[in-house]
Amino acid sequence: MTCSILSIGDELLIGQVVNTNASWLGDQLTSLGITVAAIINIGDERALIRREIERLASTSDLLMISGGLGPTHDDLTREAICDLLGCQLRIDETQLRRIELRFAERGLQLNERSIRQAEIPDACRTLANNYGSAPGLAFTLGGCRAYALPGVPTELKGIFDDEIIPEIAPKTSSIDRQTFLIFGIAESALADRLQELNALLGDGLTLAYLPGLGGIRLRAMRNGDVNHAQERFKKLVLGIEALAAQWIISNRDETMAEAVGRLLKQRGLTLSVAESCTGGMIGMLLTEVPGSSDYFLGGVISYANSLKQELLGVAESDLQQHGAVSQQVAVALAEGVRQRTGSDLAVAVTGIAGPGGGSPEKPVGTVWIAAVSGTQTIVERFQLGRERGIVRTRAANLALGLVRKLVVEE
Amino acid sequence: MTCSILSIGDELLIGQVVNTNASWLGDQLTSLGITVAAIINIGDERALIRREIERLASTSDLLMISGGLGPTHDDLTREAICDLLGCQLRIDETQLRRIELRFAERGLQLNERSIRQAEIPDACRTLANNYGSAPGLAFTLGGCRAYALPGVPTELKGIFDDEIIPEIAPKTSSIDRQTFLIFGIAESALADRLQELNALLGDGLTLAYLPGLGGIRLRAMRNGDVNHAQERFKKLVLGIEALAAQWIISNRDETMAEAVGRLLKQRGLTLSVAESCTGGMIGMLLTEVPGSSDYFLGGVISYANSLKQELLGVAESDLQQHGAVSQQVAVALAEGVRQRTGSDLAVAVTGIAGPGGGSPEKPVGTVWIAAVSGTQTIVERFQLGRERGIVRTRAANLALGLVRKLVVEE
Repeated sequence: MTCSILSIGDELLIGQVVNTNASWLGDQLTSLGITVAAIINIGDERALIRREIERLASTSDLLMISGGLGPTHDDLTREAICDLLGCQLRIDETQLRRIELRFAERGLQLNERSIRQAEIPDACRTLANNYGSAPGLAFTLGGCRAYALPGVPTELKGIFDDEIIPEIAPKTSSIDRQTFLIFGIAESALADRLQELNALLGDGLTLAYLPGLGGIRLRAMRNGDVNHAQERFKKLVLGIEALAAQWIISNRDETMAEAVGRLLKQRGLTLSVAESCTGGMIGMLLTEVPGSSDYFLGGVISYANSLKQELLGVAESDLQQHGAVSQQVAVALAEGVRQRTGSDLAVAVTGIAGPGGGSPEKPVGTVWIAAVSGTQTIVERFQLGRERGIVRTRAANLALGLVRKLVVEE
Repeated sequence: MTCSILSIGDELLIGQVVNTNASWLGDQLTSLGITVAAIINIGDERALIRREIERLASTSDLLMISGGLGPTHDDLTREAICDLLGCQLRIDETQLRRIELRFAERGLQLNERSIRQAEIPDACRTLANNYGSAPGLAFTLGGCRAYALPGVPTELKGIFDDEIIPEIAPKTSSIDRQTFLIFGIAESALADRLQELNALLGDGLTLAYLPGLGGIRLRAMRNGDVNHAQERFKKLVLGIEALAAQWIISNRDETMAEAVGRLLKQRGLTLSVAESCTGGMIGMLLTEVPGSSDYFLGGVISYANSLKQELLGVAESDLQQHGAVSQQVAVALAEGVRQRTGSDLAVAVTGIAGPGGGSPEKPVGTVWIAAVSGTQTIVERFQLGRERGIVRTRAANLALGLVRKLVVEE
């Protein structure tokens, strides 16, 4: 079963709103084993809405329409559906009473605009909206089942869960998904390592590479009848685990900070950070994770050299002799913050994020990272490119990678 | 001039990645006075990619394609373009050498797949990618100018800024644009304040609200013939400056961190931070700005209470009596970090980001922020919602807002 998603609203086209509704629907539909063929965003234009519904209905078994059901003059989905189905808008008394009740409950005056939301194309079925005013709409066009939902995320999600899933959840199809977080290898090199697995792909099995500065998310997916391709899927997952073992950070869909945090929590270890060129990013990434206070103590943003000395006890001689971006200072920062915070482990980053500050010996992108425990020190030099944002994000994630290495190797 | 955006990648359809590239492009194109007609997301399917490029090129003056230029088997945009233009993939020696250099710089092995990224449809022009391996592609189809960009956001944005804007920025028509950064007022309240200005809009004049957790970017734009609507545009800008004066942080398109940094630099002041629930985000935002070392010294991520005491000298009695999330501790953190770093100003944040840790008196979202100078203290309590990411980002930006207030009022 294939589905298209049609999102309606000028705000999506001018970048004012990111289309998280479509992503959410895509995830939901995929997990139901339904193949999402396309996500289309168009503006609030009656003729265009009609045309796109017609076009997408002719190419999909299922069509999810979001937006344009609200009370304002630029909400035109109802009218476009009438144009397409050759039907009329009629007041739906049940919906009208429900809307009146909602407004009464909140002590609001019902105005003409709100009443519009009870006007239903008379060729459509309504879908109860327990989260807002505008009901969802259901209709069929040729062989396509179409649903129109309000663009307000809570209303869209609520109607989808309450009304649509029971109608569309396929009884005969199933899906398996396994996502790996892979770090420290380029996408292309990983693809080489996994080349032999391509023979397993196709016919219900896919392997997707989702590269980012925080590693590659590698997603193996099986999608089809309950008994279809399950053996091949198992082979695929085992193959990935065997061929990419040394770069697999996690076998779930999580970030570096989540994976490292889980590891620290398992081992009962605490971590502190000393951040120069990353300026706090490592701490920010670690504390994005709820419960990170179980293992993350905090640390020092040692951006200025004076702070490296005064807060972390880095020797002026090290700074003068080797420079702030050096192996010696990276290690001194890590040991300094570990001692002062009393953490089990510490990681420090010092580098040249650019655009300024580079030299022939230490060009922009030069970063030293040190991870220390009571018994062990790992310190490495990296060249992370020329773009400030990329250098910083790579450095922060590499720092998390070194912490993991330290723990795994202890 | 109308533009369509075609985003390619299964990860967008299954909801694993939200299409922020398209929103960013939509914002950029709109601000150039180009009308975005549609945003289309499709999967990694060669024939479909070819078909959609052809369809969209026939209905738009401009086509932005993103994704499918990477090294792996599911990157098929190059092949689809060859199918469509009836041309061949050829190794581009310049691009190949650049990619070799990139890999060499990072000490990585160049493999066949990476070399693929130097294979260019010979009917296409290449666009320099200074942020990654795959170059952008440019070609024309009928009356449509088409550009293909990598899906990695930093690469897409970089190539768009460096190579595409100079080519597409409209020359026949002239554009006046004034973007304000507005902070501390809700979008709807701002719209009410500015209501009387709506009479000026239309016929070449637009006013766009781009709300985010770091404030509202309010963009006034005039787009048309050189002499058209210039008077109205001036009235619009003056009207905004008059009606929203107290919430205007900046009259340029910049972030809170950029605006505050510029102010600190002008005044020759230095800043340090003490971050609890934000975990380093304020430092990260400040150091995103090149040259921030001129005014930002660094600070302490005082996530654990032990660090509040040991690194910043917060009294145990204050922590016990008032709790870590309190006016007293916020001020003590700010004064502690200011003294220990020797900065002119300091700002501290302590709060409950959630999901855990809330209580009836201090529910999730409770945040205390203190900004101090030698002579002045500002401390405020905020309720910032229930979602961890939102609480933290709002808190970090509010902290920057308090620093600005401190400087402006000194």
